[in-house]
Amino acid sequence: MEFELSDRAKDFRERLQAFLDERVYPAEREYVDAVRSAATPHVHPPLLEELKEEARRRGLWNLFLPDPEHGAGLSYLDYAPLAELMGRTMIGAEVCNCSAPDTGNMEVLHQFGNEEQKAQWLQPLLDGEIRSGFAMTEPDVASSDATNVQLRMERDGDDFVLNGRKWWTTGVMHPRCRILIVMGKTELEAPVYAQQSMLLVPLDTPGLTILRSLPVFGYMDPEGHGELEFADVRVPQANLIAGPGAGFLIAQARLGPGRIHHCMRALGAAERALELLCARADARETFGKPVSTRSNIRDWIAEARIEIEMARLFVMKTAWLVDTVGGKNARVEVAGIKVAVPSIALKIIDRAIQVHGGAGVSDDFPLAWMYAHMRTLRLADGPDEVHKLSIARRELRRQRGEAEPLM
Amino acid sequence: MEFELSDRAKDFRERLQAFLDERVYPAEREYVDAVRSAATPHVHPPLLEELKEEARRRGLWNLFLPDPEHGAGLSYLDYAPLAELMGRTMIGAEVCNCSAPDTGNMEVLHQFGNEEQKAQWLQPLLDGEIRSGFAMTEPDVASSDATNVQLRMERDGDDFVLNGRKWWTTGVMHPRCRILIVMGKTELEAPVYAQQSMLLVPLDTPGLTILRSLPVFGYMDPEGHGELEFADVRVPQANLIAGPGAGFLIAQARLGPGRIHHCMRALGAAERALELLCARADARETFGKPVSTRSNIRDWIAEARIEIEMARLFVMKTAWLVDTVGGKNARVEVAGIKVAVPSIALKIIDRAIQVHGGAGVSDDFPLAWMYAHMRTLRLADGPDEVHKLSIARRELRRQRGEAEPLM
Amino acid sequence: MEFELSDRAKDFRERLQAFLDERVYPAEREYVDAVRSAATPHVHPPLLEELKEEARRRGLWNLFLPDPEHGAGLSYLDYAPLAELMGRTMIGAEVCNCSAPDTGNMEVLHQFGNEEQKAQWLQPLLDGEIRSGFAMTEPDVASSDATNVQLRMERDGDDFVLNGRKWWTTGVMHPRCRILIVMGKTELEAPVYAQQSMLLVPLDTPGLTILRSLPVFGYMDPEGHGELEFADVRVPQANLIAGPGAGFLIAQARLGPGRIHHCMRALGAAERALELLCARADARETFGKPVSTRSNIRDWIAEARIEIEMARLFVMKTAWLVDTVGGKNARVEVAGIKVAVPSIALKIIDRAIQVHGGAGVSDDFPLAWMYAHMRTLRLADGPDEVHKLSIARRELRRQRGEAEPLM
Amino acid sequence: MEFELSDRAKDFRERLQAFLDERVYPAEREYVDAVRSAATPHVHPPLLEELKEEARRRGLWNLFLPDPEHGAGLSYLDYAPLAELMGRTMIGAEVCNCSAPDTGNMEVLHQFGNEEQKAQWLQPLLDGEIRSGFAMTEPDVASSDATNVQLRMERDGDDFVLNGRKWWTTGVMHPRCRILIVMGKTELEAPVYAQQSMLLVPLDTPGLTILRSLPVFGYMDPEGHGELEFADVRVPQANLIAGPGAGFLIAQARLGPGRIHHCMRALGAAERALELLCARADARETFGKPVSTRSNIRDWIAEARIEIEMARLFVMKTAWLVDTVGGKNARVEVAGIKVAVPSIALKIIDRAIQVHGGAGVSDDFPLAWMYAHMRTLRLADGPDEVHKLSIARRELRRQRGEAEPLM
Repeated sequence: MEFELSDRAKDFRERLQAFLDERVYPAEREYVDAVRSAATPHVHPPLLEELKEEARRRGLWNLFLPDPEHGAGLSYLDYAPLAELMGRTMIGAEVCNCSAPDTGNMEVLHQFGNEEQKAQWLQPLLDGEIRSGFAMTEPDVASSDATNVQLRMERDGDDFVLNGRKWWTTGVMHPRCRILIVMGKTELEAPVYAQQSMLLVPLDTPGLTILRSLPVFGYMDPEGHGELEFADVRVPQANLIAGPGAGFLIAQARLGPGRIHHCMRALGAAERALELLCARADARETFGKPVSTRSNIRDWIAEARIEIEMARLFVMKTAWLVDTVGGKNARVEVAGIKVAVPSIALKIIDRAIQVHGGAGVSDDFPLAWMYAHMRTLRLADGPDEVHKLSIARRELRRQRGEAEPLM
Repeated sequence: MEFELSDRAKDFRERLQAFLDERVYPAEREYVDAVRSAATPHVHPPLLEELKEEARRRGLWNLFLPDPEHGAGLSYLDYAPLAELMGRTMIGAEVCNCSAPDTGNMEVLHQFGNEEQKAQWLQPLLDGEIRSGFAMTEPDVASSDATNVQLRMERDGDDFVLNGRKWWTTGVMHPRCRILIVMGKTELEAPVYAQQSMLLVPLDTPGLTILRSLPVFGYMDPEGHGELEFADVRVPQANLIAGPGAGFLIAQARLGPGRIHHCMRALGAAERALELLCARADARETFGKPVSTRSNIRDWIAEARIEIEMARLFVMKTAWLVDTVGGKNARVEVAGIKVAVPSIALKIIDRAIQVHGGAGVSDDFPLAWMYAHMRTLRLADGPDEVHKLSIARRELRRQRGEAEPLM
Repeated sequence: MEFELSDRAKDFRERLQAFLDERVYPAEREYVDAVRSAATPHVHPPLLEELKEEARRRGLWNLFLPDPEHGAGLSYLDYAPLAELMGRTMIGAEVCNCSAPDTGNMEVLHQFGNEEQKAQWLQPLLDGEIRSGFAMTEPDVASSDATNVQLRMERDGDDFVLNGRKWWTTGVMHPRCRILIVMGKTELEAPVYAQQSMLLVPLDTPGLTILRSLPVFGYMDPEGHGELEFADVRVPQANLIAGPGAGFLIAQARLGPGRIHHCMRALGAAERALELLCARADARETFGKPVSTRSNIRDWIAEARIEIEMARLFVMKTAWLVDTVGGKNARVEVAGIKVAVPSIALKIIDRAIQVHGGAGVSDDFPLAWMYAHMRTLRLADGPDEVHKLSIARRELRRQRGEAEPLM
Repeated sequence: MEFELSDRAKDFRERLQAFLDERVYPAEREYVDAVRSAATPHVHPPLLEELKEEARRRGLWNLFLPDPEHGAGLSYLDYAPLAELMGRTMIGAEVCNCSAPDTGNMEVLHQFGNEEQKAQWLQPLLDGEIRSGFAMTEPDVASSDATNVQLRMERDGDDFVLNGRKWWTTGVMHPRCRILIVMGKTELEAPVYAQQSMLLVPLDTPGLTILRSLPVFGYMDPEGHGELEFADVRVPQANLIAGPGAGFLIAQARLGPGRIHHCMRALGAAERALELLCARADARETFGKPVSTRSNIRDWIAEARIEIEMARLFVMKTAWLVDTVGGKNARVEVAGIKVAVPSIALKIIDRAIQVHGGAGVSDDFPLAWMYAHMRTLRLADGPDEVHKLSIARRELRRQRGEAEPLM
C-alpha cells in the first residue's frame, strides 16, 4: 500500500492548479455577472470559449478519458486529483471539456458507438464544439428503479418512433447542445433487464419539444435541466447504440464513472468551502474575538478536515479498484462513495454558510450554489437509499458466505 | 397544566383553515406562475390584493397584534396555531397582513411610536396599503453582535444625516414598500448598549440608494432583500422612535416576538413538508412496493411527527410565558425555540425533498423554496451559535446559584 | 393551554425535593459502597428500609397509583414531576415504593386482580414488604412482537403447568422478591391476540429455576435481571389474572403507564447529568481557562437545556392525554416519548461523561451507570424501531384520511 | 497510489487469522467464564498462557515492534491489518504480546532506555513474563493538558522521592504486573514543556499503594485501572528514562503509536460488531420477516460498511505516513484517526446492540463490553475535543499560509 500520487498526476495537477489560479478563479465573478445580466439564464458567455482554448493550449483537455488517443489517457486514479481541482469552481469542468453529461456521453460513444456515430457526434464533443444531453429520468416514475423507465421506442420501417416524457435532462438548454442519448423501451417481450435501448436523438428532430427547464432550488442553470416531450419523434434505427436491449448495460457502464467523477468534484467543493469557512472565521469578530478562535467553530474545521481526508481516500481507492479490477467489481465501493461524499460535502458547505451569515446564502460566495447542486447528488442517479440497499444486500451475502450472483 | 387550545383560538383556526382551503391553496400555483412570468421578480400580483380583501372580510386580518383596538387582540398563545397555518404556504402571512417585517415594524410603531408617527405610518400598514423594511444588518460586520452596528446618524440642525450601508433589508424591493425603520449610531459617547437609535426613513429620501436585491440560494424573492447605501440621507429628528439611544431596547422588544412568529410559521412549513412526504411516499413505487412501506422512510415519518410535537409544545410554552411573564423573562425560551425549530423543520423538509427526488429540488413543490428560506432562519437575527451561547451562560449561572444580572 | 403545575403537584414536589436533599442524596455513596462490598450483588442494604420508612412517614409513598384509596391519588400529570425527581438518583424510586416492575405489577393487580389476589399480593406490595417480577421477554424470540411469546401454560386439572424460558425478568434477584406475573400461551386455538394469559407464579414454586442474573453492561444490579427456566411449574388456575386470553390486553394496559414512568424518570437522569456536566466544566481548567468557557461545551449545555425542555413538555402532554382521554387514545404520544426521551437523555449523559474524562466512565459519578441503564430503555419493552413503525403507520393513515382500526 | 497489502502483511494476516479461528475464538467463552467465576476480577486464567505459547510458536509474537531484532520488524502499515484482527476479540492482543500499555512501555524502553533498563525490564516484557503500567493521568487535574501533571519527583541524594496521586494506570492490577513508567515533575524551574521526566518504578516499591481499581461502565477489568498513591516513594535516579525533563518528549513519542494501535484495533471491533449485527438480523424475525429485510436495518449495515472502509483507509494512510515521514509529521493525521475511528466504531457497536435487544447489553455477546471500552477511547489520552483543537489550529495556519512552529 502506498499513498503517493504518480509523477504524471502530480505534473497535471501542478499545471491545472496554475491554470485555475491564473485564469479561472479570476474569471468567476465575470462569469456570474454575465449570466445574471443576460436576458435568459441559458447563455454561454464568450469568456468560456477563451478559457477552453487556453485549457486546450495547456494540454488540460479531455482529461477524463482514459483512452490515450482521444483523451489524456489518465487512469481514474490519476484523474481524481484533477477532477477535484475542477470541482472547486463552477466553471472548472466545462473549460477543460470535462463536464457532465458530456463526459458520460463521450464515454458511451467511445466504448459502444460505431464509426459513423463516433465521427458524427464523438469528434465534435471531444473538440468542445457541441454539447449533449442524457435523457433517462422520467417525471412519472421513480427512476431509482431503472426498470421503471417507460418511454416507448417503437420500430416503424427503418426508424424508431419515440413517445413519452423525460425530465432532468441536464445540458439540453445549453446554446450548443445538439444531441441526446435517450433511454427507452424497445424490447417489450425481453426479460426485464433487456428491454431498454439507448438511442442517439438530434435535438432538432421534429416532435421533440423542450417543455421547460427545471430550477435547482432557485437556480436556473445555464446548461439547464430540461423536461422534454417526445411526440412521434422519428429516428433511424442506425442511431441505436450497441444494439437492441443494451440500454441497461450501457447505463450501468456509464453511470459508474459518472458517479466517481461527481464524487471527485464534490471533494473540490468541500475543500473550497472549508477554505472559505476558515478565511471568514479569521476575518470576522464577535464579542471582541475572531470567530476562528471559538472552539465550536474549531470543532467544525477539524471535523471537516477529518471527513474530507476519509472521503478522498475512499474515492481514490475506488478509482484504483476501477483501474485494476474494473467497475463491475467495484460496485460496492462506487455505491459507497456516491452515498458518503455528497453528504460530507453538504455538511461542510452548510457550516461554511453558517459562518458567512447572510453572505453565505447569497451569491457573493459560491456556497449556496454549491449547496443546492451538491444536494441534487444525493438523489440524482439513484437516491442514497437505493445505493445503501445494494451495499447492504452484498454485505449480508458476504457475511453469510453466499456466492455473488452474476448480475 | 392543560393542553387544550382556547375556544377563541379554535374558532379562528377553523375559519383560517377554511380560508386557506377555499381560497389560498388554490391560488398558490397562479401566484408562482405570475411571479415566474413577470419581467422582474419584484412583483405584487393582483390576486394577492383580492386575497387580502377576502381575508379582511373574513376577520382574518392583523391577527398578530395583541392590541384589540388595532389588531385581533389575540394572545401569543392564541395566535400561535394561526401563524402555524399561515406558515404552510408562501403567501399565507401576507394575505392576512401578518408578514415580516411589517408585523415587527407595526409592533414597534404601536409600542414606541408617537401619535404623528402612528397616523402617518402605522395606519396604512395596518390597512395593508403600504409595506415596510427594517434595516439593521450591515455587510461589513458580524451583526450577531448588535454593538457592531456602524451606520452613522449625525445630528445636523433639526435633522439626522445618515451615512453607511445596510443589507438584508427584507421587503425593500416590494412595489408597495414606503418606509424603513433604520438602526444606527447616534450617541457615540454613551455606554455601549445606549449608543444606537431607531429612525423612520421614507424610502424615497434622497441619498438612499437600493444597490441590489440579494438572492436566497437562487431565489429572488418578490419582496426582496436589499443592499442599501445611505449617502448623506437627511431625515428630521422628529422621525426618531422613542428617543435617542433607545435602539438596542427597541431591537430587543422587536426581535423577540419576531422570533416567535418565525418559529410558529416554521412549524407550518414542517407539517406541510411531512404531508407532502407521506403523500409522495404513498404515490411512488420502487421494486414493486410503495415507498411508504419501507421502514427507513417510516422512521423518517415517525421522527418528523415526534420532533414536530416537541417543537410545537416548546413554541406554545414560550408563547404562554411571553403572555404571562413577559418577553424579558422568557429570553431563554425564545432563544431555545429560535435554535430548535428551524433545525427540526429543515431536517423534515430535507427528507421530504429526498423522497420527491428531482421534483423536490424543483419548483413543482414548495419544498426547495421552503428549505432555502428556512435555512436563513438559522442565521438571520443572530446565528444559532449566538443564541446557544446565551442559553448556556444562563444555565451555568443558574446551576451555580448566581443571581441574574439586570441586563 | 396553560403550563403551570397544579398546587397539589407543587406541594408534593417541594416535599419530595426536601426528602431527597435531606435524606436520599446523602445516602447515595453509602448505598453504592454497601452494594460494592457485599458478597453478592443482590443485596438490600438496611439503609433502604430506613429511607422507605421515612418516605412513608412524609407521605411520599405509592405516589404512582392514581387510585386515592391505595395510592396517592395523583393524576399522571401531577405524578410526572415527582417521578422526574425520583429519576435523579438510583434509589429514588425504590425508597418511595415507586420502582419498576412493582409499580406495573401493582397496577395490574389493582385493575385486574380479584379480591383474593389483591389481599395476598397487592397489599404487601403496597406496603413495601415484598417485591415482584414481570416475566414476558423470552431469550429465543424477538419480544418486540408480543405474539412471539412462546412459554406454554397447559391446563391440567385445576392447575396450569408451565414450560419454557424467560429472561430479563427484572427484580427477581431482589432478596424480597416473592411473586411473578408471567405471560404465556394458554389459548392455542384463539385468534393471535387472544392466545396469551397472565398468571401469578410465586417465586418458590417447584420447577421454577433462576438460571442466572444478566448484567447490564458490566453492572450486576441488586434487583437483578433473571433468566428463568419453567420446568413443569404447577400453579392453580385461580392464579389467572382477569381471565383466559387477557394477556395481551393486560400487557398493553400495563406497558403504557410503565413507558411514561420510565420517560419521566429519564428526564430526572438527564437533568442530573446536565447539572454534573456544568459543575465539572466549571471546576476543571485546560490551557488556562475553565472548560465551561469553551464554546463547544457551551453548545452542549444549550442543546441539553433545549432538548430537556422539549422532552419534558412532550411527556407532560402525554400524561395529560392519558388523564383526559385514556391511554388507548394516547398511544402515538406514548410511543413518541418512549422513542424520544431516552435518546435525548443518552446524548446528555454521554456528553457529561465526556466532560468528566475518566471519572465519567467510573463509579465516582452516577453517569456511567445512568448511561448503561438508560441505554436499555431504547430496546426494553419494544425497541425504538417498533415504536417508530407504529407511529408512522398511524401518521400515514391520518394523512390519507383513513379511519383508525379498532385495534 | 496503490491499495494492495504487502505480501509480508498478507502472510502474517493469514497466519494470524488461522490462529484466531483455530484457537482464540473458541477460547473466548472459557475466558469470560473463568473471569466471572474467579474470586477477584483481577485474574490471569491459565488458558492465556497456553495461547501465548502457541502464538509464540506460530511466530505471532511482538508483532507491534518495528525493530526486527526484538520484534517482528513490521512497518506500521504492515502491522495495521494484524492489530485489526487482534482487536476483534478481547484477548487477541494479549495472547500475541501486543496489548497496551505494555506495547507503549516496550517502545519507550526500546527507544529511550539504557542497556541496564532494557536488560532488567524490556526483556521480560518482550518474553511476556511480566506486565507493566503507565502512570500519567491524575485524578485532580484535566490530563488532556499534559502540563497539568502534578506528581512531584524530588531529588534526594541518589534517589528521587515521589509524592502524589495517579489514576487510570491500566494494567496495574494484573497478577503479573511488576513495573510502572511514571510521569512527574522534576525540573520545576524549566520551561513548561521541559519540567517533566519519566521514571521506572517497580510495583513493590515501599510507599506505593494501589488504592483501588476503577470500573469501566460496571466492568472490573482483569488488568485493572488503578488509582495509586505515592507517599515518599524512593527510587534511584538511575531509573530515569532518557534524562531529566524528557518526559513530555517521551510521552509524545509514546502516545502517537499507541493512538494508532488503538485505532487499528477499534476497526477490528467495528468489523466484529457488524458481523454480529448481520448474523442477528438474519436470525431474528419480527412480524413475519427476518429483521435483515428491513430497510432501516439495511441502512445501518450500509452505513457501517461505508464508515469502516473510510476509517480503515485513514488509519492505513496515517500508518504509511508514520513509516515514511515520521510520527512528528503525521500529527494531524494521528489526531484525526484518534477522533474519527472510535466514534465510528461506537456507532456501529451501538446499532449492533440495538439489533440484539436485551442480549446486546448483557455478556452473552461481546458488544456491551466493546462499547464500554471503546467509549473510553474518546477521552483516554486526550479527549476528542483536544485533538480537534489541534487539528483546527494547524488547518487555520495552513490556510493562512503560515509556517508551522517548531513545536
